[in-house]
Amino acid sequence: MPYALIATVSDQPGMLFQLTKVFVEHQVNITHIDLHTAGGVSEILFELAGGEAGLDRILEDLRKVSGVQRIEETPSLARVYGKRIIVMGGGAQVGFVAMGAIAEADRHNIRGEHISIDTIPLVGEQALAAAVRAVMRLPRVKLLVLAGAIMGGEITTAVEEVRRNGLYVISLNMAGTVPDAADLVVTDPVQAGVMAVMAVADTAKFDLMRQLKKRY
Amino acid sequence: MPYALIATVSDQPGMLFQLTKVFVEHQVNITHIDLHTAGGVSEILFELAGGEAGLDRILEDLRKVSGVQRIEETPSLARVYGKRIIVMGGGAQVGFVAMGAIAEADRHNIRGEHISIDTIPLVGEQALAAAVRAVMRLPRVKLLVLAGAIMGGEITTAVEEVRRNGLYVISLNMAGTVPDAADLVVTDPVQAGVMAVMAVADTAKFDLMRQLKKRY
Repeated sequence: MPYALIATVSDQPGMLFQLTKVFVEHQVNITHIDLHTAGGVSEILFELAGGEAGLDRILEDLRKVSGVQRIEETPSLARVYGKRIIVMGGGAQVGFVAMGAIAEADRHNIRGEHISIDTIPLVGEQALAAAVRAVMRLPRVKLLVLAGAIMGGEITTAVEEVRRNGLYVISLNMAGTVPDAADLVVTDPVQAGVMAVMAVADTAKFDLMRQLKKRY
Repeated sequence: MPYALIATVSDQPGMLFQLTKVFVEHQVNITHIDLHTAGGVSEILFELAGGEAGLDRILEDLRKVSGVQRIEETPSLARVYGKRIIVMGGGAQVGFVAMGAIAEADRHNIRGEHISIDTIPLVGEQALAAAVRAVMRLPRVKLLVLAGAIMGGEITTAVEEVRRNGLYVISLNMAGTVPDAADLVVTDPVQAGVMAVMAVADTAKFDLMRQLKKRY
């Protein structure tokens, strides 16, 4: 069961080093860290796994670290925002994919799922290829939808790379070689958004893997 | 200028501790970290500031750490995905806010901005209040749009908290007390999305702060 702690600490060198030392000592696995710094104070979010049984001792040891102002338990982002679907490409088409995905995610989230739809309208082969590759470095992403009228070249290479790393990719039916590289090709953008959500929702019966390389 | 490194390391206790030690020694400020672990290997993304001049030495010292398989420079997520606007609430309205925001972000991103629109359809006072509060712990978020037909109670308290922490909040014109707590109230959801993007875009002339507490 993932859990999370938020540490308010002085913005001084080595704070993260001291705190991670405590986690090592308690054999806690850090799955995600985020830092915000403002006005001489840093807030550090730790998403953690393991060691819950000794949580009181962990909190005690963290509070002993010099420079620590506050340590609190907080809801895990994985529980609040859950799985992420990323939609990228041209604004007109990204908008319609998002509409379909958001409406469908609503239906699943009401039944206890946690699915967020994240989007970025982008233009240009290099910018899109970089964004596709960077998806692997975003937390909690399960599926990528590419929404545009023509995509190929370096974007296709990037799609092949992220698919090898286990990410599902849905492409709109478009010009260029990206549809050939995707798991699934869908013509209607609203339908593409709906299918993207169905593919990642535990509350859905749709198995994207059984649809591999199909076109709708 | 932010920069980023990606470290491929053995999934063993203390890796993060050893790596952050190197950053401390070189007086590098860590602004964001993300970890993914699969098949006994962890990929750790470090978003960094400072110490660029000694980057070769930093890379050398990181590569000396036991368990490190690869250290590479990578585009900073801040450069690829940029500023984030989060839209949350009821699916129908979140969808239309997203449409407006995505279309407007497209116009700014073409001129060199990097704005992403992230959404989550959610139901219920407690779930929404938790998601509003958790926005402060997400990286790169500049503005929150609340899209629904009625929001109040604990959600309003959460809105007041995040506004005190410097986050801008736009609310649709709706029942409940959330509109009174927001910076700006907009009736048309597409317009709310467009205004949200204008408020955070450096390429726009619209100053949200001058619109404080206005209703459209």
